[in-house]
Amino acid sequence: MPAAVSDPRAAVRALVTPERLAEFFAPRSVAMVGASETSGWARFIVAASAAVGYTGPLLPVHPRHPTVFGRPAVHSLRDLAEPADLAFILVPTDAVDGVIEDAGAAGVRNAVVLASGYREAGPSGAELEHELVAAAARHGILVLGPNTLGFLNTAARVAPFGLTVPLPLAAGPIGIALQSGALSSVLLAFARAHAIGVSTLASLGNEAMITTADVLDYLVADEQTRVICLFLEEIGDPAAFSAAAARADAAGKPIVALKAGASQAGQQAALAHTGAVAGDDAVVDAALCQLNIIRVTSIESLLSTAALLGYQRWPQGRRMGVLTASGGACDIIADRASAEGIEIPPFAPETTAVIRAALPSFAAVRNPLDCTGYVLANARTSALTAIDHALDAAVEDPGLDFVLSTGFTIPDARPPDPAGKLLEDRLAWVAERIAAAPIPVIPLGMTCTDVSGYAREVLGAHGIHLLPGMELGVQALGNALRWLDGRGTVRPLAGPPAESAVSAATATAWAEAQGRELLAAAGLPVVPGRLAQSAEEAVAAARSLGGPVALKINSARVTHKSDVGAVVLNLSGDAAVRAGYEQVVAAARPHGGGTGVLVTAMRHGGVEMLAGVTMDPGFGPVLAVGIGGLFVEVLRDVSLRVLPAGRDEVRRMLGELRGLPLLQGARGGVPADLDELARVISELGDLACSVRGLQALEVNPLWVSGDQIEALDVLVVAGLDDTDIEFAR
Amino acid sequence: MPAAVSDPRAAVRALVTPERLAEFFAPRSVAMVGASETSGWARFIVAASAAVGYTGPLLPVHPRHPTVFGRPAVHSLRDLAEPADLAFILVPTDAVDGVIEDAGAAGVRNAVVLASGYREAGPSGAELEHELVAAAARHGILVLGPNTLGFLNTAARVAPFGLTVPLPLAAGPIGIALQSGALSSVLLAFARAHAIGVSTLASLGNEAMITTADVLDYLVADEQTRVICLFLEEIGDPAAFSAAAARADAAGKPIVALKAGASQAGQQAALAHTGAVAGDDAVVDAALCQLNIIRVTSIESLLSTAALLGYQRWPQGRRMGVLTASGGACDIIADRASAEGIEIPPFAPETTAVIRAALPSFAAVRNPLDCTGYVLANARTSALTAIDHALDAAVEDPGLDFVLSTGFTIPDARPPDPAGKLLEDRLAWVAERIAAAPIPVIPLGMTCTDVSGYAREVLGAHGIHLLPGMELGVQALGNALRWLDGRGTVRPLAGPPAESAVSAATATAWAEAQGRELLAAAGLPVVPGRLAQSAEEAVAAARSLGGPVALKINSARVTHKSDVGAVVLNLSGDAAVRAGYEQVVAAARPHGGGTGVLVTAMRHGGVEMLAGVTMDPGFGPVLAVGIGGLFVEVLRDVSLRVLPAGRDEVRRMLGELRGLPLLQGARGGVPADLDELARVISELGDLACSVRGLQALEVNPLWVSGDQIEALDVLVVAGLDDTDIEFAR
Repeated sequence: MPAAVSDPRAAVRALVTPERLAEFFAPRSVAMVGASETSGWARFIVAASAAVGYTGPLLPVHPRHPTVFGRPAVHSLRDLAEPADLAFILVPTDAVDGVIEDAGAAGVRNAVVLASGYREAGPSGAELEHELVAAAARHGILVLGPNTLGFLNTAARVAPFGLTVPLPLAAGPIGIALQSGALSSVLLAFARAHAIGVSTLASLGNEAMITTADVLDYLVADEQTRVICLFLEEIGDPAAFSAAAARADAAGKPIVALKAGASQAGQQAALAHTGAVAGDDAVVDAALCQLNIIRVTSIESLLSTAALLGYQRWPQGRRMGVLTASGGACDIIADRASAEGIEIPPFAPETTAVIRAALPSFAAVRNPLDCTGYVLANARTSALTAIDHALDAAVEDPGLDFVLSTGFTIPDARPPDPAGKLLEDRLAWVAERIAAAPIPVIPLGMTCTDVSGYAREVLGAHGIHLLPGMELGVQALGNALRWLDGRGTVRPLAGPPAESAVSAATATAWAEAQGRELLAAAGLPVVPGRLAQSAEEAVAAARSLGGPVALKINSARVTHKSDVGAVVLNLSGDAAVRAGYEQVVAAARPHGGGTGVLVTAMRHGGVEMLAGVTMDPGFGPVLAVGIGGLFVEVLRDVSLRVLPAGRDEVRRMLGELRGLPLLQGARGGVPADLDELARVISELGDLACSVRGLQALEVNPLWVSGDQIEALDVLVVAGLDDTDIEFAR
Repeated sequence: MPAAVSDPRAAVRALVTPERLAEFFAPRSVAMVGASETSGWARFIVAASAAVGYTGPLLPVHPRHPTVFGRPAVHSLRDLAEPADLAFILVPTDAVDGVIEDAGAAGVRNAVVLASGYREAGPSGAELEHELVAAAARHGILVLGPNTLGFLNTAARVAPFGLTVPLPLAAGPIGIALQSGALSSVLLAFARAHAIGVSTLASLGNEAMITTADVLDYLVADEQTRVICLFLEEIGDPAAFSAAAARADAAGKPIVALKAGASQAGQQAALAHTGAVAGDDAVVDAALCQLNIIRVTSIESLLSTAALLGYQRWPQGRRMGVLTASGGACDIIADRASAEGIEIPPFAPETTAVIRAALPSFAAVRNPLDCTGYVLANARTSALTAIDHALDAAVEDPGLDFVLSTGFTIPDARPPDPAGKLLEDRLAWVAERIAAAPIPVIPLGMTCTDVSGYAREVLGAHGIHLLPGMELGVQALGNALRWLDGRGTVRPLAGPPAESAVSAATATAWAEAQGRELLAAAGLPVVPGRLAQSAEEAVAAARSLGGPVALKINSARVTHKSDVGAVVLNLSGDAAVRAGYEQVVAAARPHGGGTGVLVTAMRHGGVEMLAGVTMDPGFGPVLAVGIGGLFVEVLRDVSLRVLPAGRDEVRRMLGELRGLPLLQGARGGVPADLDELARVISELGDLACSVRGLQALEVNPLWVSGDQIEALDVLVVAGLDDTDIEFAR
C-alpha cells in the first residue's frame, strides 16, 4: 500500500487540541448557513437556542433570502461584519465545499456540517469526506460531522442543534455523545421526564475530524460534566478511544455506554447506518469491561445509571439497607438486588430496636423493611412518618454501606395546606438528614413515571433526585457498583500493530515444533517431546520419554492433523511407536506432508484448558481462556480480554468461567493452582504480543493438574510484516 | 392428624360461586364500618369512589360519630335502613368479629376486612383468621381479606379501595390482582402514565375466603377484562390456581405475572410478608411456564405486556417489520428483538421498491428501516411523512407477520394550526390504515415517558395505544409471542397427593433391585443384571451377562454406595468378579449391609442422562431432566416440569438443555434418538406418579446411545401413605 501522502491526519490531529475543543463547544456567535424559513433544521436550531437561553447572535446566511425568521440574512459567510465563532452548515452536500471556502476566507474557525452522503454512503462519499477534511484542515477549520445534528451546551447556553429539544431542558451533570444524532431527542425526552440535567450533548456524525475520543476528552475536561453517556455504533479507533476512557477513569468520571450491535441483526443495522464495520460483539464487551465503561442495553438504563452517578453520593460497598412502605416492593427490590449482586444484610440489633419503636406492633422489622401501609394512611396527620424514623436509624447501622429509601411519592400539584405544608416540611427534614447521613441515602421512585412539575419543583428545591423506579433503580445501582469496583484499573488498549492488515493477508500456520520452541524459549512449560525424522528416532524418543506417547505430524501444511489421521495417541512399546510413525507420515502425505513427527509424552487426568490469542482488526490481540472440550465447543464458555492482561486479570478471567468448579476440584479432581495457571496464561499473552505479524497463538490443550501445567499442543499463525514484505521483494 | 371437623372449607367453597363473585365485585351500596374523619383509609375510599365515578350510597358506620365527611353515620350495620351490598370493615383487628356479627344480623352478604394481625402474624393470628372465616361462613358472608386494601371496578364504577388512586384512572381491558395491596398504587401510577386502562383491581390480602384462583375466575368471566395481571408472593393452592389458569387459557385471556421470590433474599422478604412458604423458584418457574403464564420481573414489564395484549391485534408469527426515523433506534430494536427471538427479515422486493420511492435518495431501504431525520424536518410541511408511506407498503409485505412502527412523538400541547391540524390529520390517516391493515401494526413510543394530556387525548381519539419505549416494547412483544405460542397447551396441575406430607415424614430409600423391578414391570428399559447372594452366584451372573460387569450392594440402608466403596465397575473374569463381590459386601457391612449384590452389564460410550422425579410440597411431582455429570453437577443444566409431562413436553425439555449438542452427536458421538428418549422419560414420570407415597424416583445414569436407552442405576424413595400407617398400627 502506498503511503497516503495526502492524508491530512496529522494536520487534523494538530487542530484538535483541548483548547480548540473547549472553544468549539462554547461559541458566542453562530451562523446558520443555508437557513430558510421552510427548513425544519433551521427552525430546530432557533428553538433549541431558545431552550438553553442562548442570547448571542444567531445569523442566517442565505444566497437568496434577505431575511430569515425576521432576522436579516447575509449572502455568504464572507459578508459577516466579523467572523462567527461557529458556522452551522445546513446546505446540501454538493454546496458544502463552497461554504468551507467562504468560512476559511471569512476567518470562521469552527463548523458543524449537517449534510449526509459522505462516508456512510459508500466509496464515492468517503472520497468526498476526505476532500472536505482536507479543505477544512487547510483553512484551520475544526469540523463536527458531516452527517451530524450538532450539539447543545447548557452551561454555555448555546445550542446549534438541529432536532427537537423537549422542554424544559435541565442543566446538569450528564454529558452525552451519540453516534446516532436522531436518538438525541429520545434521550432528552427521558432525561426531561426524570429531571436529569445535561451539560453538553453532541451528535458525533461521521467523526471526520472530531471523533468520539475527542468528545470524550472534552467532556472529561468540562467542569459541568460529572458522568458521560455514550451511544455507540462502532468504535472506530480503539486505541484513541481507550486512551480517552483511561483519562476519564483517572479523572473519576464514569462512562456509561449503550453500544449497539450485540446481535447479528443489530450489527447489520449498525453497518447500514454508519458504513463502518462493527467488531465482534464479545470482544467489544471485553474491551468496554476492561475500560471500566458500564455497558447497558437501553436508553432508560443509560440515563438512570448516569443520573445515579451524577446526582448521588457514591456507595463504598454493596451492603444495602432498604426502606419501603410495601412488602411487595421489598420482594421486588430483593429479587432485583440479588440479580445485581447487591447484599441486603440484616439490620444491627440497635437499628432494629430503634425502628421497632417507630412501627406498628404487627410490622416485622427486618431488612428490606416494610414500614407497612400505615405510613401512607397517616401521612396527612404528621409531618414525619415511620419510614423517616427508620431512615434515621438505618444510616447509623455499621453493617450498611448505603440506604435505598422510598417514600417520595409526590402528588401532581401542591395539596392545600395543611397537607402541602406538612409534605414540604417533611421533605425539608428528610433532605437535611440525607445530607448529614454518614452513608449515602439513595431516594427511589416506585416505578418509571415522569416526575411531575410540582414534584420537580419541590424535590429540586431540596436537592432530592429520584431513581426512576425499582427496576431501573436497582439496575443502576448494580451498574454503579460495578463501575466503582473497576475504578483505577483502566489501561489504554494498544490496538492492532500497524502491519496487522498486511499480516492477516499473508498469514500461514507454523509447524508445531516451531511453536513449541517459541514457548519453551520464553520459559513457558511445554510437554516433553522430540522431533523424529524416522521410525527409529521415534522409538528412541519414546523410550527416553518413558510411558505412553503421542505422535503427531510436524507440518505447516496439515492444519487439521487429527481429522486426517496424522495424530495417534497413547502408544506404548517399540512396535506400536514404529507403526504409529509410519501411519502418521502416510496420513499426512496427501495433505502436503511434514518435516518429521513429534513424539510427546501423554498426560492423563487433570483439566484441559484452551488459551488462545487472536488478532482483532480493531482492538488488536485478544486473549481467550476456556476449559477445553465440552465447555468451549458446546457451551462457548470462554472469557475474553484485549491484551495485555496481567496475572490478576487472567485470574479474574478464570473466575468468570462457568466451568470454574472443575478447576477447583469438582468431581473428585485435584484443585488446580489457579494463580500459577493465571501466570502461565498471562505470559503466553505477553509472548503472543511479542511475535511480529502474529494472527493467532493457541495452546489447546493447556493441561493442568494441581500445580503441573503444560502446553500439549501449540498452534501459531503469523503473517509477514512490512519488513518481511520488503525482504520478500 | 385429627380430621379438622370444624374446618369450614367446604362451606366457604360453596359460598364462592361465579354469581357471588360477580355480585361481590359490583356492589351498588357500600358501608364504611369504622370510618372517621381522621382515618386515612376512609379518606382514600371516598377519593377512590370519586375517581371511578361512584354514585351509589357510601354509608359511614361508627359507634361514636354522628357524621363523617359530612355524611350522616349510623352506629352499627344493624341500623341501616336496608343492608349495604358490601361492608368495608375498617375497624381494628379485635373489633372485626363484632362487625361480622352485625353484618350477619343486618343481612349484609359481602365484606372487605382491612385489619392485619391474622395469618401473616403467626399461629395466634392464624387461629383468629380461622375464627373469622368460620363466623363469616356461618352467616353466609363472603369476605375479601383480611389484610386487604379492597378493590376497584371501573365498569361498575365502584371503588371500596383504601389507597391512593392516581388520577385520571382510565377504564380498560386490564384486570389486576395483587397479593401485596400497597403495590396497587404503583401499578396504577404506571398505568396512568401510559394510558393503560383497568377493569377490576383487587388486593387479595390473606385470601381467607376469596383466593387468587377465585379472582382469576372472576376476571376470566368478567367481560371488561381481556388480560389479567398478577402480583404473586406465593401460590397457596397450586391445584386450584392451575385450574383457574387453564380456564383463562381456554378463554383466550392471557395472564401476566410478577412472581416475587426469584432470589433467596426475595424469598425471605416474601416469607416475612405473607407468612407462607414460597416454593422453590425453579419449580415455580416451570409451573408458570406450563400454565402459559407470562412471568415478568418488573411492574413496568407486567403492564407493558398486558397493554400490548389488551390493546393491540395479536401477531400470528415472529417476523417483524420495523419502521423508525433513526438508525440508532434500528440498532437498539434489532438487538432487543434478537434477544427475544423476534425475526427482522428483509423486505420483499416490491416493498423495497415502494419505500425507496418515498425516501430521500441517500437512505438505505432495509428492515429495520431508518426513514432518516428528514421525516422530522419535514413533518411540519406535509401531513404525511416517509414513515407513513413506508407503513403502507410494509403491511402488504407477504414476509411479515406484523409491523412495529414509531413516528408517534406528540407534543405536550396542541401546536397552533396549521401544524396542529396537520398532525391530527396525519394521525387520523395512520389510524385508518392501521385499522385496515392485513397484519397488526403495533405503535411504539421511543422511550418510557408519560403520555402527555394532549397525546392521551389525540391518540385516544384515534384508538392508538403506544408501547412505552423500545426496551419495554420489544420485551412485551417477546412475552406476547411466547404466550401466543403456548396457547391451548395448558392443563391443570394435580398438586401433591393428599398423603404427601405423611409420606415425606416416613420416607425411606428402596434397595436398588426393587427399583429395577418397578421400572421393568412398567416396561421401561433397565440394564441387564441379576441379584447375587454369593460370590459364585455373582460369577455365574457375570458369565451369563457376558463382557465386563458392575457390582453394587443391594441395600435400602446404604444410601451413598459409591462413597463407601460398595460399588465396583468394569470387572472382567471370574477372579475379579469374585473378589469384587467380597469387597462390596465388606464395604457395605459397617453401613448396615444389604440383601445381595447386583451384577449388571457395563455400558460405554453414549451419553449419561439424569431423569428424576421429586415431590414438591406445593406443586406435587416434579420431573427433572439433565445430562449427567458436569452439566448437572457443575452447571445445574436441568429442565423441570410439574408432572404429568407427555412425550412432546419432555422432547421440549431436552431442547432446553444447554448440553443438547452432546445428545445431537457433538464431539463425534452417535446422535441420540431424542423422541425415543423423550418417550422413556415421559413414561418414567407417569410411573413415578403411580407409586403411592413417592418422594423421589431417580434414574442416574439413564444411558443413551443412538436408540439404545437403559437405566443403569435406580433410586426410589417412598414413604408410608395413610393406609400404610393404619396398617402399621
